[in-house]
Amino acid sequence: MQAGDRRRVVIENIEPEIDCGRFPIKRVVGEKVVVMADIFADGHAAVSARIRYRGPGDKEWREVRMRFYENDRWRGEFAVEEIGDYQYLIEGWVDRFKTWQQDLKKRLDAGQSFKADLLIGADYVNEALERASPEDRGKLCRLAEVLERGGDSKETLSIALNEESAALMQKVPDQRFVVASEKALVAVVGREKALFSAWYELFPRSCALEPGKHGTFKDCERLLPEIAAMGFDVLYLPPIHPIGETNRKGKNNAPEVLPGDVGSPWAIGSKEGGHKAIHPQLGTFEDYERLVKRARDYGLEVAMDLAFQCSPDHPYVKDHPEWFRWRPDGTIQFAENPPKKYEDIIPFNFETENLTALWEELRSIVLFWVDRGIHIFRVDNPHTKPFAFWEWLIQEVKRQHPEVIFLSEAFTRPKVMYRLAKTGFDQSYTYFTWRNTKKELIEYLTELTQTEVREYFRPNFWPNTPDILPEFLQYGGKSAFMIRLVLAATLNSNYGIYGPAFELCVNEVIPGKEEYLYSEKYQMKHWDRNKAGNLRDFIARVNRIRKENAALQTTWNLHFYEVDNDSLLSYGKATEDLSNVILVVVNLDPFHKQSGWLRIPVSQLGMDLTQPYLVHDLLSDDKCIWQGEKHFVELNPQILPASIFRIRKRLKREMDFDYFM
Amino acid sequence: MQAGDRRRVVIENIEPEIDCGRFPIKRVVGEKVVVMADIFADGHAAVSARIRYRGPGDKEWREVRMRFYENDRWRGEFAVEEIGDYQYLIEGWVDRFKTWQQDLKKRLDAGQSFKADLLIGADYVNEALERASPEDRGKLCRLAEVLERGGDSKETLSIALNEESAALMQKVPDQRFVVASEKALVAVVGREKALFSAWYELFPRSCALEPGKHGTFKDCERLLPEIAAMGFDVLYLPPIHPIGETNRKGKNNAPEVLPGDVGSPWAIGSKEGGHKAIHPQLGTFEDYERLVKRARDYGLEVAMDLAFQCSPDHPYVKDHPEWFRWRPDGTIQFAENPPKKYEDIIPFNFETENLTALWEELRSIVLFWVDRGIHIFRVDNPHTKPFAFWEWLIQEVKRQHPEVIFLSEAFTRPKVMYRLAKTGFDQSYTYFTWRNTKKELIEYLTELTQTEVREYFRPNFWPNTPDILPEFLQYGGKSAFMIRLVLAATLNSNYGIYGPAFELCVNEVIPGKEEYLYSEKYQMKHWDRNKAGNLRDFIARVNRIRKENAALQTTWNLHFYEVDNDSLLSYGKATEDLSNVILVVVNLDPFHKQSGWLRIPVSQLGMDLTQPYLVHDLLSDDKCIWQGEKHFVELNPQILPASIFRIRKRLKREMDFDYFM
Repeated sequence: MQAGDRRRVVIENIEPEIDCGRFPIKRVVGEKVVVMADIFADGHAAVSARIRYRGPGDKEWREVRMRFYENDRWRGEFAVEEIGDYQYLIEGWVDRFKTWQQDLKKRLDAGQSFKADLLIGADYVNEALERASPEDRGKLCRLAEVLERGGDSKETLSIALNEESAALMQKVPDQRFVVASEKALVAVVGREKALFSAWYELFPRSCALEPGKHGTFKDCERLLPEIAAMGFDVLYLPPIHPIGETNRKGKNNAPEVLPGDVGSPWAIGSKEGGHKAIHPQLGTFEDYERLVKRARDYGLEVAMDLAFQCSPDHPYVKDHPEWFRWRPDGTIQFAENPPKKYEDIIPFNFETENLTALWEELRSIVLFWVDRGIHIFRVDNPHTKPFAFWEWLIQEVKRQHPEVIFLSEAFTRPKVMYRLAKTGFDQSYTYFTWRNTKKELIEYLTELTQTEVREYFRPNFWPNTPDILPEFLQYGGKSAFMIRLVLAATLNSNYGIYGPAFELCVNEVIPGKEEYLYSEKYQMKHWDRNKAGNLRDFIARVNRIRKENAALQTTWNLHFYEVDNDSLLSYGKATEDLSNVILVVVNLDPFHKQSGWLRIPVSQLGMDLTQPYLVHDLLSDDKCIWQGEKHFVELNPQILPASIFRIRKRLKREMDFDYFM
Repeated sequence: MQAGDRRRVVIENIEPEIDCGRFPIKRVVGEKVVVMADIFADGHAAVSARIRYRGPGDKEWREVRMRFYENDRWRGEFAVEEIGDYQYLIEGWVDRFKTWQQDLKKRLDAGQSFKADLLIGADYVNEALERASPEDRGKLCRLAEVLERGGDSKETLSIALNEESAALMQKVPDQRFVVASEKALVAVVGREKALFSAWYELFPRSCALEPGKHGTFKDCERLLPEIAAMGFDVLYLPPIHPIGETNRKGKNNAPEVLPGDVGSPWAIGSKEGGHKAIHPQLGTFEDYERLVKRARDYGLEVAMDLAFQCSPDHPYVKDHPEWFRWRPDGTIQFAENPPKKYEDIIPFNFETENLTALWEELRSIVLFWVDRGIHIFRVDNPHTKPFAFWEWLIQEVKRQHPEVIFLSEAFTRPKVMYRLAKTGFDQSYTYFTWRNTKKELIEYLTELTQTEVREYFRPNFWPNTPDILPEFLQYGGKSAFMIRLVLAATLNSNYGIYGPAFELCVNEVIPGKEEYLYSEKYQMKHWDRNKAGNLRDFIARVNRIRKENAALQTTWNLHFYEVDNDSLLSYGKATEDLSNVILVVVNLDPFHKQSGWLRIPVSQLGMDLTQPYLVHDLLSDDKCIWQGEKHFVELNPQILPASIFRIRKRLKREMDFDYFM
């Protein structure tokens, strides 16, 4: 502390600010950053405050005024319009002119003399003149004149006290008294898809027309219209690189391999190449690039799997033995989590002496594929590689390619998952996969959407993955798949499924586990994609509803509503201007009809308690007119386990015929 | 981020840490600092962590091991034994040896081969040898030998896996992989009185034997035995400096002064001097110093009022006109909070050009009195002076005199009060004065004792002050005074009363306000200290209970208990070793007998649900034996509105006669 500091304002408890500014917050283009802070000074002096912020394209800082919120807390906001890094900070100061206005008002109300006070106000204005823009200077001169002239005319006092005068003076605080928050905070702004995406995971090798044949990229191309018709916009393929032969796993993860076994695509690398090569049985680089392009024509972006690990046959093992651990008996250290062993996979040693070379090689893998048109990466098991590595890698890639999206596939401890998100991942796998009851879902979604977590962790909900066939889907039949789809797709704006296992409602499991029997991870499958009872149409409907309703295109507007049945979950989402209001009710019980009384916070949704409103179930296409807060709902999971209502005010005229046509 | 960082551990969410380490936490000698943090690494590697800390007298850092707590959170603690500043930080690392032990254990359990693993363990130990102390080196050598020798003998494996081996290795982490928390945090350690004190506020000028005579320091001396007998340990006197005559206020704050009116002691400064002078009618420097010394003989420490403001007659006004604000009409700006005016008081201008000189002069005032034996200051209205000033001043004084205690008399907005505490005040006035109902008290005390606030804000509870005669005391009669005393003295380890108005249960008020009628602030009073119905004995009893029961000597051990009557408040306090357990029940209703069923968390208090325990009401001296959790209590405010039970386990023998003798 140095003696004689004249700056009296305090700025503390800034939000959003992650770990004292150690990590950035995240936004997508079109969102805003609402900044709050406690801002106050000693005594009864009035303070003013503003946000200064700067986008990636801005040379100068921009300013936006903060306003008093409550209890010494101030609020301001700015919109982010460009991809890249925004910086923001807060400035606050004792606003002598505003204080003077407040005091003058009180003196007037108490009938006290205020002659000298007008002159004091004039002094403040004159002092501010030199700091003003030429345009404002004229206005300030006129204000000073009025105050100097004095008198108690209504006009003089109105000019002295009005908000316009205060606003003028607020533009030119005396910088010697201005306090700035300690450091500029950062918002990493990504493209819209980071917040609104529907993923479809597909094993290309299972896409062949004929059973027993190895599928190719060309086979995938054939399926594009069908996947696009279901409404997905990201097509995620597990690793497409050559697969190792040494210690290859057989069907159902058997340690013994049989002739014809294709191995796990995550055992990357063979004599045909490593992470920058393509498995020859899938096709060529040209085939892959054509698939990526054709997919784009269908509105589908191809996402690549980034699995930073090697099969024992990966060229790195010979070329860079220093990147791996070696045991005293001269053997290489394969992956293990004792007593489990993964002999077909060798992890990198992230404590090796020359770690920089390894990091740089891994970065080159990402950039290699970015150059080939891939801008979305699903990162396999990021929690088994150092946090510092991801922070560096993602920053390095985004510096040149801020449009790239990284999805963290970390199913691990909560703090590890959140830390990975802080290091820069755009989207993250979550525990949604195992949250089934009303209490679980409300608790988890509240944590994700109503706490600081929302500033840096964008959830992506997966009802199933090739690794996980959860118990709820094992037991609940087709209704269970519908329930989980609606929840994933409407609770959260990012979701994905592993197909066709999902839409075919596959529930064959290794007994006592949550693993698929005859998993595609270890063998090719031949799916009957048109099997009766498949969910393709239902999925298409849900995805179309998402696309047509802006309220479902973000996760941060989620609110749970009361319903007096623990098997019914109800929640709403609305756009900020309330032009699109969605109400979802899901029967969480896949077996029984459930009903209950629902309470809709009608006033919060911009409607009148006394006026009827239009309710359109976008899933069933049923329509009705409701009024007030309480409504009876009943859902039969054998027919439709959910309703996705769009709610609209009635138009002014007597009856809104158009809407029902 | 730089490529190739080999440190894999993350340390985040450290507690206690105030505003990202911007402010220190507070402790008193004998307390501990419990440090928690999320500490983890990628993968399944085990981590280890320690606290490094250093007291004011330490040349070297000390180390204490942290232990896993839950959910990636770690915990460690250290005791503070000296007055002054402690620093603390956290170090964490991937503990390869511990990971190796865990893996080895799992391999053994699964019956897997582990020959090469013993050699890996030996490598880790050999590598650590050079970092070990000579003493530990021998032990590590023996450990390495055992592991190198190998085999599967029970003894070998026991040595490989035991906790002692892990602890040895934990002492010598490879510094290249150790992560330290970003900065050393600070704990300001004060003397015990900062946490445990009973204040008595007294106007010396009202202490004369004869009515109408101006009291003196010598008169105060005469009262010392009586104040000490009530059990107080701080004697706080309002300002003792010369009082201004210009604009002096009359009785009851009248703008017109009458002959003989003595003025407010807070209007400091006259031709007889300012903040470094003594009001001649009170006595001389010698008298004051003698009072301070004699008080100490009675276990009473004299606290001085620091009111940084001037009367218009203060010598500063002439000598340093630049330290004040002047109005365009040439008059000095007196204190005001429009439309209220305080014409007898002139504030300093803390935005003046040469502010440093003013700060330094104010510091010299504090040091002046410290040199004269004053080590406790009650600071008047600190919230009307800049936070930065207090932070600087308190640090400056404590650097030379760490034993000095500053009490913040700020009754203002919550964030302002908390910020003042962060700047360094040892104790703070609170809203206790206006918290009367069960709900209010539980909410407020929970905020003060169960949130981060407890790390830096030490509350001091005042049922009354010369400024405030709260409505509860106005209306509730003698019982109300007893209720508020017990609450202040047992909820909180720091409390104070303004006497003799308190012990005489004075409740004459300016109608419609919370201000004393004929307040001592503006006139001398002649109290009949022995008036019938006074609370001196009751206060003495409560203070003696505080002194005899260690559980009441801290605020941080407070827990509220259930009682099924909203007029009854119940709470417990216990020492950490449970050797002293106190249970308080207060009837918050000063008018009616109240009763209810109380639930005592017997097991948490170290007792057995099935065994009777001894209950001794230290206020009434009633004794009984209870068993189990539920008990009926009834309190008649006309007799005793509270019970302060000491709870003890029964001794082993059949009946504990001694205790009841």
